[in-house]
Amino acid sequence: MAYLIVELSVNHRQQGESTTVQTQDNNLKSLTPFFHPRTIALVGASRGQASIGYRLLESLQKSHFPGSIFPVNPHTTEIAGLRSFPSLQDIPSLVDLAVIAVPAGLVLSIIDECAAKKVPAAILITAGFAETGGTGASLEGQLRERIRGSGIRLIGPNCFGLMSLDPATRLNATYTPMVPPVGHVAIASESGGLGLAVVTAAQRLNLGLSSFVSLGNHVDVSVNDLIEYWEQDQHTKVILLYLETIVDPPRFRHIAERVGRNKPIVALKAGRTQTGQDAAGSHTAAMATNDQAVNALFAQCGVIQAKTLEEFLSLATGLSNQLLPQGRRVGILTNSGGPGVLCADSCAAEGLVVPDPSQGTQSALASFLSPMAALHNPVDVIGFATEDQHARAVETMLTSDELDALIIVHVSVRTKDNGPVAAGILRGIRAARRAGHKQPVYLCWMAEGDLDRSFIVDGEVIPTYKHPEIPARIIRHALTYEAWRKQPPGKIPAYIDVDLATAREICAKALADRGPGWLTTKETHALLVAMKHPLASGDIATNAEEAVRLAQKIGYPVAVKLASHQIVHKTELGAVQLNLVDDQAVRDAFNGIRTRLEQVGKLEAMEGVLVQPMQSDGVEVMVGMTRDPLFGPLIAFGLGGIHVEILGDVQFRITPLTDRDATEMIRGIKGYRLLTGYRGHPPADLEALEETLLRVSRLVEEIPEISELDLNPIFALPPGEGCRIVDARIRVMRQT
Amino acid sequence: MAYLIVELSVNHRQQGESTTVQTQDNNLKSLTPFFHPRTIALVGASRGQASIGYRLLESLQKSHFPGSIFPVNPHTTEIAGLRSFPSLQDIPSLVDLAVIAVPAGLVLSIIDECAAKKVPAAILITAGFAETGGTGASLEGQLRERIRGSGIRLIGPNCFGLMSLDPATRLNATYTPMVPPVGHVAIASESGGLGLAVVTAAQRLNLGLSSFVSLGNHVDVSVNDLIEYWEQDQHTKVILLYLETIVDPPRFRHIAERVGRNKPIVALKAGRTQTGQDAAGSHTAAMATNDQAVNALFAQCGVIQAKTLEEFLSLATGLSNQLLPQGRRVGILTNSGGPGVLCADSCAAEGLVVPDPSQGTQSALASFLSPMAALHNPVDVIGFATEDQHARAVETMLTSDELDALIIVHVSVRTKDNGPVAAGILRGIRAARRAGHKQPVYLCWMAEGDLDRSFIVDGEVIPTYKHPEIPARIIRHALTYEAWRKQPPGKIPAYIDVDLATAREICAKALADRGPGWLTTKETHALLVAMKHPLASGDIATNAEEAVRLAQKIGYPVAVKLASHQIVHKTELGAVQLNLVDDQAVRDAFNGIRTRLEQVGKLEAMEGVLVQPMQSDGVEVMVGMTRDPLFGPLIAFGLGGIHVEILGDVQFRITPLTDRDATEMIRGIKGYRLLTGYRGHPPADLEALEETLLRVSRLVEEIPEISELDLNPIFALPPGEGCRIVDARIRVMRQT
Repeated sequence: MAYLIVELSVNHRQQGESTTVQTQDNNLKSLTPFFHPRTIALVGASRGQASIGYRLLESLQKSHFPGSIFPVNPHTTEIAGLRSFPSLQDIPSLVDLAVIAVPAGLVLSIIDECAAKKVPAAILITAGFAETGGTGASLEGQLRERIRGSGIRLIGPNCFGLMSLDPATRLNATYTPMVPPVGHVAIASESGGLGLAVVTAAQRLNLGLSSFVSLGNHVDVSVNDLIEYWEQDQHTKVILLYLETIVDPPRFRHIAERVGRNKPIVALKAGRTQTGQDAAGSHTAAMATNDQAVNALFAQCGVIQAKTLEEFLSLATGLSNQLLPQGRRVGILTNSGGPGVLCADSCAAEGLVVPDPSQGTQSALASFLSPMAALHNPVDVIGFATEDQHARAVETMLTSDELDALIIVHVSVRTKDNGPVAAGILRGIRAARRAGHKQPVYLCWMAEGDLDRSFIVDGEVIPTYKHPEIPARIIRHALTYEAWRKQPPGKIPAYIDVDLATAREICAKALADRGPGWLTTKETHALLVAMKHPLASGDIATNAEEAVRLAQKIGYPVAVKLASHQIVHKTELGAVQLNLVDDQAVRDAFNGIRTRLEQVGKLEAMEGVLVQPMQSDGVEVMVGMTRDPLFGPLIAFGLGGIHVEILGDVQFRITPLTDRDATEMIRGIKGYRLLTGYRGHPPADLEALEETLLRVSRLVEEIPEISELDLNPIFALPPGEGCRIVDARIRVMRQT
Repeated sequence: MAYLIVELSVNHRQQGESTTVQTQDNNLKSLTPFFHPRTIALVGASRGQASIGYRLLESLQKSHFPGSIFPVNPHTTEIAGLRSFPSLQDIPSLVDLAVIAVPAGLVLSIIDECAAKKVPAAILITAGFAETGGTGASLEGQLRERIRGSGIRLIGPNCFGLMSLDPATRLNATYTPMVPPVGHVAIASESGGLGLAVVTAAQRLNLGLSSFVSLGNHVDVSVNDLIEYWEQDQHTKVILLYLETIVDPPRFRHIAERVGRNKPIVALKAGRTQTGQDAAGSHTAAMATNDQAVNALFAQCGVIQAKTLEEFLSLATGLSNQLLPQGRRVGILTNSGGPGVLCADSCAAEGLVVPDPSQGTQSALASFLSPMAALHNPVDVIGFATEDQHARAVETMLTSDELDALIIVHVSVRTKDNGPVAAGILRGIRAARRAGHKQPVYLCWMAEGDLDRSFIVDGEVIPTYKHPEIPARIIRHALTYEAWRKQPPGKIPAYIDVDLATAREICAKALADRGPGWLTTKETHALLVAMKHPLASGDIATNAEEAVRLAQKIGYPVAVKLASHQIVHKTELGAVQLNLVDDQAVRDAFNGIRTRLEQVGKLEAMEGVLVQPMQSDGVEVMVGMTRDPLFGPLIAFGLGGIHVEILGDVQFRITPLTDRDATEMIRGIKGYRLLTGYRGHPPADLEALEETLLRVSRLVEEIPEISELDLNPIFALPPGEGCRIVDARIRVMRQT
């Protein structure tokens, strides 16, 4: 191409914005007192055993927090064996962290006291803020004001607390006394109840945590702050997020993409309600839901999206305890045919490969397994296999170098065999590990009465599930994440050939002249030309004879379409006439369109007709854009027409698009094979389509007045021949 | 239409075949000794505690079977306190049921002894038959021979046994001593291990069973026999099947459709491997997998298909303990926001509705809930809600007449609250039930340390799950089943206008003249005409000038296509030329096709060209057929082209198609909306498409020599105008 492309990565590009290295350091420093306080004041500590204040104190004490705990309560001098203070000011030392559980009406004055005492961090458990609406919401507004500039970082309000399980800290500032095992998973939850459920289940699930934060209404500390903090936390290897909203999507994207390269981020996003407007003028807007935006965001920054709570928890144990698989070859070892087949089915459904063992491996297995054993994959050691047979089978499969992951599926036949079988499995894993074979191992343990057995060998936890279909899902997620992580970050091309000034002027003038609405066909074309988009040839005629002259110039067959910025759905009006083969047909088309407009009383909406050559080659695709109030511009790509509107085969991404985003959008639609050459048709110029996506991204990032855009259809020509935009519409709105 | 339609239901039609009322009665009678024996002989009973023979005896004794048990063992006179007999003949009474656990080598002689003793039923636990291949398979062949005509019904071999939990029988003839709760679910499992896992989990899952059968290698008693038996069994209300194969699909369809009208059948089908031939000549054959056939079969006879083991078990508890929901309105009652939202999300994902309570119901709830409670749906009673608040909230929601089902999602905040909350929930349900409100209730109980709590009120089990996403899936399955059940059975129209003799003759002649292969274009057209299929107009030309004459007669624009029974993929060869607008274009098209065939050395394959009018109206669809070796003819329907081949948007059904099958196939594709009028296009003549499907079904049922068929494209015209088959190919094979 004739013009220069300046490439900038998303990260570089955004470093000038909200998140510099400087603010990263500040964030780390300001959040440290939450996770490593030396002194804690519990404001609202209480002797009433049913109260939250009492339960918080009990949790703090039971967790063996090594620092000092100062209960604050104006009505007593001692609680649970600790000296209590009437107020924060009376505490005779610095306070690193205040945990606040006082009635909502007292919160503001306590915050003032914290400020006076120079407390750097506070966790506000108290509920009764925005979640209750009305006065609670206004109280939350005041709280936010009070915090701003106070020097205090605040978690909450309306939250369930925080745990920091670093062995040097051992802090449980929540109101459950159940402390999970120590490990490498950090969890942030926007729901207290869900956080409680996860934290209390952790023991049973063998889920080791580094820290847990209940975000509550997050008036100050956000999930983004926490991800950035955990990036630097050496104890954290996997980050788990339960989210109901996305705060500051651009910053989330920026941080998650960076952090995710080293530490997998798993998110469960709840509240997937439709916000798309059915009455929207563009197809893109009609389909763009909050859910689509969230999916796009997560895909763009490598976040692993769990679709159910079970998957969320399974991913947590699977990813935190085992290395990522390095390929799709999965071995299945079972003592029972049926569950083994179900496991194999789920592997196939997730796109994994279940290869038969080599002849050598089969011989090795045959040398110690029962003659009734099945030596294919799944390898079935049969129901009564011994400890030793299990150990040797596991070792043989893991050391065969034929597998990227191993799933062991066990159904208990006799209760008394469970211990020996478990020991055999662990012995086999240990032998393989010591021989240097580190492939991930997952276990499905179906042993009634012994379901919660822990499998730990040399400190390594083997993730254990109850149903044979789960491990395959974990492996597929891990592979997708690993593939994302291994690719270089995307770059944002800066097309220096674009004439942004003209594009801006067209939008501004249309807004000034007519107010918000669609650009005329002429304006649309001029804008696309300014952005160096490849428009199909053709021109506008304002009467039948002019249309005929244009058609003759173009050569038959031609298409004749209404040009109007007021009438959006042209097909339904019969205002798109295709395959016209002679002058008379063009004349009839013009007059027909005119007549139909007259009949519906909309003649004045007719700017003329667009006369174009019939595009007979190429594949029809569409590119669209709509603005989400939270996520900003969402770009859509699909095959157009029924594919997008009826089948929903469309990919969304959030701007700015990187080259990688554009590539993945095109390859992500189900109909992608149609673009690679299908039944004798030539393949499409994918580079040209990518460029179209990237130029649209640039346009809508630069001109916020553009509120919706549809390029539909675009004809993708064979490689090297580019693409042609055949129809386009652009809507402008005033910036608020 | 001008011709008579004789309508026959599938059931009527098949009653002349394998399953008459007579054989149904025989089946019931011959299987009764398995489930209600008065005397049992345990052949291979043993004193060795590790042996299966010992464990079977232990299970029989522990289950308090009220009849007589006769151990048979030539080496001893007493086992576990029972008198033992050297052989079956020595037993001094009739034996209703023999349970056999002897080495495989002894099995045939024991069967002979059973025959001599006139034992009507035997369960063969012994393994070492076809599942081991080789000699085991040949032994199984001998066993099958021996059973045939012996008067013995046999379950197994290679099975895990049988349980009959009718309180009057209390029979556990398996080798697990764990007896599940008594209830209304009958289970047949083709995998012993999976059956074991389900039976042993039943206690924890509150899954009450009526009977359990491990099918093993099913040389005699099949799953079909069992379904028919359970149809008559008053204790069985739900039938659960774990299947790895489908035995006799037509009989399965026939029985399952009949039984399913009264008792839901839930199936988990494992072994979903691809058997479709990528190299198949027709698109239908390429896509028809064993999985597609199984899905079709289940859809046609109302079987509820579970996709995972968890779903299978969840359906079992959900369907056996609650009435079917009568609508989509689901209420959610929770004490925790996050899990409530996840539950609501899953409802939306399953197509359910989560309506806000009416103003009246909200006021009622507000009168006793905390001011912090959320009164929308999900109704959030908040974390510390009391027993009484739970009871009243449950009762209020169930009695509001605003909901078709209620899901209660509970996260334990304090362990000591679990008991009162559980009591409150049950109290609320009881009050609603007594007031006549019977909507189904499902529970998600997330209470660590108290996960396996049973919820039973006045004998009613409330299905209880661990994740908030599961109940919505159960409700969706139940609604689909209920909708299926409420519709009248499908009918098979007998088109008396078809000329089957001609159709048969065309196939026979082609086979005789050229052997197996595709029919010529002329033969194909003649056959379709004989079947009264609506062919697009057009004819075959064997030279360019003939093609031009045909085109002139038809009127421009026309399509010119290669006619050849040897060349199947015409598009790739450039042998389909569309939109030809004048004589020269037709001439060029003919010569071009001829030249390309010459170039690839296939000129002799050219039967000529088909000249047709261009179909500019209507929607393109396709109908196809392929024969599955097990399932017989599979009919496919889709929008054709990319929709079927790339997007896989296709519906399959097994023949004979009923009118209901045809209707559901057309409505079942994702692109269905395109057939109902889309963006100004007229809707399609759905009746004509249904008729095409039904006529194809008739054809391939009548002429088994037709091995593959593609009608692609078919243009569906507006309602009343029918459809036009534009291209077709039919392959014939000799019957073996």
